[in-house]
Amino acid sequence: MPGFDASGIRVVLFDIFGTTVDWYTGVAEQAAEIAREAGVSIDGGAFAATWRERYLPSMRRVTSGEREWAYLDTLHRESLDDLLETLGYADAFDETARRRLVHAWHRLPAWADSVDGLHRLRRRFTTAALSNGGFALLTELAKAASLPLDCILSAELAHSYKPAAPAYLTAVGLLDVPPSEALMVACHRWDLDGARAAGLHTAFVERPREKGPDASDKADGTDDLTAATFTELADILGC
Amino acid sequence: MPGFDASGIRVVLFDIFGTTVDWYTGVAEQAAEIAREAGVSIDGGAFAATWRERYLPSMRRVTSGEREWAYLDTLHRESLDDLLETLGYADAFDETARRRLVHAWHRLPAWADSVDGLHRLRRRFTTAALSNGGFALLTELAKAASLPLDCILSAELAHSYKPAAPAYLTAVGLLDVPPSEALMVACHRWDLDGARAAGLHTAFVERPREKGPDASDKADGTDDLTAATFTELADILGC
Repeated sequence: MPGFDASGIRVVLFDIFGTTVDWYTGVAEQAAEIAREAGVSIDGGAFAATWRERYLPSMRRVTSGEREWAYLDTLHRESLDDLLETLGYADAFDETARRRLVHAWHRLPAWADSVDGLHRLRRRFTTAALSNGGFALLTELAKAASLPLDCILSAELAHSYKPAAPAYLTAVGLLDVPPSEALMVACHRWDLDGARAAGLHTAFVERPREKGPDASDKADGTDDLTAATFTELADILGC
Repeated sequence: MPGFDASGIRVVLFDIFGTTVDWYTGVAEQAAEIAREAGVSIDGGAFAATWRERYLPSMRRVTSGEREWAYLDTLHRESLDDLLETLGYADAFDETARRRLVHAWHRLPAWADSVDGLHRLRRRFTTAALSNGGFALLTELAKAASLPLDCILSAELAHSYKPAAPAYLTAVGLLDVPPSEALMVACHRWDLDGARAAGLHTAFVERPREKGPDASDKADGTDDLTAATFTELADILGC
């Protein structure tokens, strides 16, 4: 980390779920509310975490070529249906409730430091979302959470999913910079490892509460930068 | 126009060059400055207008299939080289000057009503740029002109150009709405005719100074809405 020269960085790409917004709390609260209305009492946090566990495997089936590209909402819906069946709640949640649950991922609260940090980083860099969430989902989410970003990018634009290289390379290509002039910011090792393999620089931001009580990823010294918050990242980058 | 029910509109797409920003003044001033430094005296306005005349034909060669998709900067550069040759200035403008001229289209002033109108329209609708300018160009331009948009979209995402239908349909597809729930805002008849043919609603905004002293397009009664400014459009749509 000491010695990283950020002078060549022109674009900063932000992972969204967990890194910029708190999916755990957001989905937990909405799921508990929707369940209550369906007459079921659930532990919203455990529900959100179990649902999220199916996220990476579902995308891997796309990036491996096992299935054709599918929108994240579709993957969320499939894993939700499977989860409700497993939990024995299949009859309690009707079509409307299931749609509302999938839509919970479109409206999530920003971490306390996200808006201020993004605002400062935007002064010096072109800033963009780069998430596995779909373009429409991210546009809605960024607006609802008032995230000050210069543009929305999504793995959808590559019809791929991070950590596959096309997701990153399509994004930097659209911003007309080589990968070496882009910095990927995330709280997940798999995302940063994918970005690095595609030639981007990486910044790890710690989000110890990302999975609620469950352990979150830790910095492992492989990234160009490590920060506790977006505002600390802005400090480090002199914004 | 009376009787248009906007209650089904969820997305408003804004053309950029001429509709949201003043390309004529912006390019004229930058071109005159770059020419002066190159030791040539030009009428910046006439230069900008003549350059812009080559815009539609160059894109038509792409949408007709006569040539493969090419980035707008590439088309601008080709028509610039041709224009300088025609005007007898080929020797006066070196590579650096030509790059600066092409880049002039990345930094253009907003019309006086654009920022306020966009700000108001954004409260009710998802708002996006939808231009033939490339994604990187539009991101830079929107940031420099402080255009409050929810996201950037570009015909580049379809590897096509307006008024070809894929440019519009890719945009509404990414925002996950059917064409009938989108409103295209432009000051060019050819753009709105293309949008309507793709199934979108249309709003004509008059920009009488778009081409400087040359005649600009006029409303012809075929659009769902007509407004003199973005703020009047916001008034009409109750924002």
